Amino acid sequence: MAEKIFRVDMTKLRVKVEEVPSEWMGLGGRGLTSTIVATEVEPTCHPLGANNKLVIAPGLLSGTPAANSGRLSCGAKSPLTGTIKEANAGGTSAQMLAKLGVKAIIIEGQPQDDGWHSLHVTEDAVTINRETELVGKGNYEVVSVLNQRLGEKCGVISIGQAGEFKMSGANLSVKDPGSRIRSSGRGGLGAVLGSKKIKFISIEPSNNKLELADPEAFKTANRTFAKALADNQISQALAQYGTNVLVNIINESGGLPTRNFTTGQFDKHEEISGETMHDTIVERGGKPKHNCHPGCVINCSQIYNDKDGNYKTSGFEYESIWAMGADCCIDNLDHIAEADYLMDDIGLDSIETPVAFAVAMEAGVLEFGDGQGVLDILKNDITKGTPLGRIIGNGAGSVGRSFAVTRVPVVKNQAIPAYDPRAIKGIGITYATSTMGADHTMGYTIATNILGVGGSLDPLSKEGQVELSRNLQIATAAIDSTGMCLFIAFAALDDEACLPALIDMINARFGISLTADDVTNLGATILKTERAFNTAAGFTSKDDRLPEFFKHEPIAPHNVVWDIDDATIDSFWDF
Amino acid sequence: MAEKIFRVDMTKLRVKVEEVPSEWMGLGGRGLTSTIVATEVEPTCHPLGANNKLVIAPGLLSGTPAANSGRLSCGAKSPLTGTIKEANAGGTSAQMLAKLGVKAIIIEGQPQDDGWHSLHVTEDAVTINRETELVGKGNYEVVSVLNQRLGEKCGVISIGQAGEFKMSGANLSVKDPGSRIRSSGRGGLGAVLGSKKIKFISIEPSNNKLELADPEAFKTANRTFAKALADNQISQALAQYGTNVLVNIINESGGLPTRNFTTGQFDKHEEISGETMHDTIVERGGKPKHNCHPGCVINCSQIYNDKDGNYKTSGFEYESIWAMGADCCIDNLDHIAEADYLMDDIGLDSIETPVAFAVAMEAGVLEFGDGQGVLDILKNDITKGTPLGRIIGNGAGSVGRSFAVTRVPVVKNQAIPAYDPRAIKGIGITYATSTMGADHTMGYTIATNILGVGGSLDPLSKEGQVELSRNLQIATAAIDSTGMCLFIAFAALDDEACLPALIDMINARFGISLTADDVTNLGATILKTERAFNTAAGFTSKDDRLPEFFKHEPIAPHNVVWDIDDATIDSFWDF
Repeated sequence: MAEKIFRVDMTKLRVKVEEVPSEWMGLGGRGLTSTIVATEVEPTCHPLGANNKLVIAPGLLSGTPAANSGRLSCGAKSPLTGTIKEANAGGTSAQMLAKLGVKAIIIEGQPQDDGWHSLHVTEDAVTINRETELVGKGNYEVVSVLNQRLGEKCGVISIGQAGEFKMSGANLSVKDPGSRIRSSGRGGLGAVLGSKKIKFISIEPSNNKLELADPEAFKTANRTFAKALADNQISQALAQYGTNVLVNIINESGGLPTRNFTTGQFDKHEEISGETMHDTIVERGGKPKHNCHPGCVINCSQIYNDKDGNYKTSGFEYESIWAMGADCCIDNLDHIAEADYLMDDIGLDSIETPVAFAVAMEAGVLEFGDGQGVLDILKNDITKGTPLGRIIGNGAGSVGRSFAVTRVPVVKNQAIPAYDPRAIKGIGITYATSTMGADHTMGYTIATNILGVGGSLDPLSKEGQVELSRNLQIATAAIDSTGMCLFIAFAALDDEACLPALIDMINARFGISLTADDVTNLGATILKTERAFNTAAGFTSKDDRLPEFFKHEPIAPHNVVWDIDDATIDSFWDF
Repeated sequence: MAEKIFRVDMTKLRVKVEEVPSEWMGLGGRGLTSTIVATEVEPTCHPLGANNKLVIAPGLLSGTPAANSGRLSCGAKSPLTGTIKEANAGGTSAQMLAKLGVKAIIIEGQPQDDGWHSLHVTEDAVTINRETELVGKGNYEVVSVLNQRLGEKCGVISIGQAGEFKMSGANLSVKDPGSRIRSSGRGGLGAVLGSKKIKFISIEPSNNKLELADPEAFKTANRTFAKALADNQISQALAQYGTNVLVNIINESGGLPTRNFTTGQFDKHEEISGETMHDTIVERGGKPKHNCHPGCVINCSQIYNDKDGNYKTSGFEYESIWAMGADCCIDNLDHIAEADYLMDDIGLDSIETPVAFAVAMEAGVLEFGDGQGVLDILKNDITKGTPLGRIIGNGAGSVGRSFAVTRVPVVKNQAIPAYDPRAIKGIGITYATSTMGADHTMGYTIATNILGVGGSLDPLSKEGQVELSRNLQIATAAIDSTGMCLFIAFAALDDEACLPALIDMINARFGISLTADDVTNLGATILKTERAFNTAAGFTSKDDRLPEFFKHEPIAPHNVVWDIDDATIDSFWDF
């Protein structure tokens, strides 16, 4: 089965099946989405107009038996940041698309009328259909109805109401093995699908097995790889407490942004910690660990039930809990879980949105700590697209501009996540220089600054942070191209066998002979491709800066400011 | 009486009186505000934070008997555009400040608490006072109460509710000789005064006469100058119909942006034309002509009464009437007048705000043509700072981003005014290259493209438009430094005696010997100073572009698109 590209023209409502150009053959995931966007999208176009394109691509190893290879990459020019954007999520779609031989789906153009559509992907074709029933519905209902229409095994990529309203915080949501919701959350890619007037993309299940050039070598490498993941201490902590294991750790470090980034510790951190969450889950008969895609050996996800033992939310992540918790001063984990469920259902980024709420709290729209107020606005304003709902649904920068707040934690208009750059300086370099706005996953220096993975580097020192962030950003760009979950990085940094096994799998899959240097070069090339797009869109080094207040407002308990000078930040790009 | 600079530190609530540095001696108005902002304001600062500064300066000839010299310049980093900004208005303040020997007032810092203040300017001092009574009030009430407190002759610069809310469309409002409102409208400078927690600045009247180096030469030059203004045909048309004489002219040209810039003619143009307005004013006992500042010989302003013969609004300008009229498809001149009054009172830019309403109409927030709906939102939402009020009060770009509209007529986030750049291409060059976002007054090519002043140049041709805009932008920067009203430009372009007489007045005032070349060099230097600020703030040539839709959507009746290429636009800066 030859790989192909489906090109969906939403202006003419026509689909073409294209051969994969030779220069895109060796690319997958983020490497492919960023290359296509950089090649085909006019950098100065309006992100919600006919000239933007949404590109969906499984990773290089997606669809194979490789452990943890189920991430789906989506790319476009971001309506939130105006930069190039890739976001990835778990769920079942990446593996399903790969098994159908889909290298990428490129969605371009824009319908002339206001009607909604859906796409259905099979091995041979993408069909464009009119959709009415599911318009205005949340992601959970979309998945549930499609399970009835197409069978439980269908794949689904969808948008909730936020994407229909083209809010800049809108997710592309991906159905997971339990028919729950995984999110490509950052950068508003859901608004781009909404701007194409597509409510969902469904995928036909397939029993295809992908051909491997060297099945034995693949199997051996995968065994080594999976063992490295499973043996890793961080992997094990993630399995026990989820990513939310970090609340207490980051609070202890003094870098837990609290009350809209005015202090570095949350006095109610125990109420929202991974430990508390774990106990609550067990007590209420939830699931403390499970996977977001088939083949995951880490199992950092969980199912959180309400007081009555009924399902409330899953994939309940540290960053979401931090943002709605410490940053908004909400100490009620049930309120946070309900908000998490609603954001998944509405299809709103669970980092951007709570950070936006915290800025709204600073503006006096509601009180810090008002969990019920947040839930009311999510249900009554965002779901209905009221003016307040639009302001918050468009993210933290939108709230700041609307209410004239000056303490707005964004870079390139994207909300800064759960690690304060004054107290953990490496991550500040990542926020500033990332090609996609503030995003911890672009170069997760927390590993080395805080967790002691890949060495250790004092988070309060200025030394070495640029190099750390650069190495991690390059490695991440490569990992994001494989379809691998980023959490393989902990094992990759600490276990010598891990990375070679990953490269062996790629080689055994395609019958090639990549080296570690090739992989590094791939990562560097991706970053430079993305950076060139941004430069052509009008971005300069002046955009590679943290907000002004970080330089002037010290953060407790360390009483430190952001003090890495501009020239040092800009040296990031010296490679 | 030596000239001085008052430096008002709103952090420490302290005022210093400073000598005028020698390098600022020869500057006034925009030349001075832009130089001070470029020298003292960090270009990347938050416009509403403690590090921005608001600079207020009369022009070089303000306070002298020179005709039409009563414009007051205000400068800062703009919260709307993020660029350097100067806006000027008539009224009595420029001449009053000049007579007190005030070269400039620099307002810096930010109070630590939420209380409001006022400034009172006398010859020797600026005092900072707490203000409570007028907080939350509109400009008309501010002026009325201050007339009682301080006497009818006091000068007033104030903000309405929009400035208090720090909306990006907020005016700095200036009391005029009839205790009505003149506006430094563009770029949200009212939000900057609001961010300093200053509700108004009052100015003590003075009987000082400014010393002239050569009173006789001054008198002679002024006589020649005033005659040139009074004899000019355009001046005379402005006196008869106000600036609104342009509705029919621009409609006829096919460049009257209508229904959010979707077509170039408004079928109801007669309902809102200058001719109709004139007849209505006369019929209802209004005043078809009067001045906005003492010494004006053009008298383009007017007093428009309601049906019962009571005062409704004044200074009822073409751009405001176009924006609320053709662009919003409102054909009821009384609704437009009421909106104009409300915008003056709330202190909102009467270009930015109606263009924002038109984008909101496109988004479906209200219907095109719904004048009553606009009035309701102005009264119930903007005055109260509701979420919808914030969205609209922050301007057209804000509405576009909030409601995901792609047809948003802004450059550098400032609304494009009353001349469609597809059908009148010279003005498109001005919009694109202006250092302050889309603004017709920065280089009013309409003079030559449409009115046949200063030669004539086919508005539909691409040839010569860059040179036209460049020459006008340079000249305008110089004129904006003198305190002169921009409408002297018509006489300056068509009457050989006019410009030399203006230069003679400057020379006679200061005992210097400027040449016409010196004045041109001054204008060019100001533009380059402003441009350098913007570059340091992160702006590039990519920001010197019209919105994408102008390239793709032809406008009737000429069915033309914006077709001047990027390199040609960028050649603007080759001087």
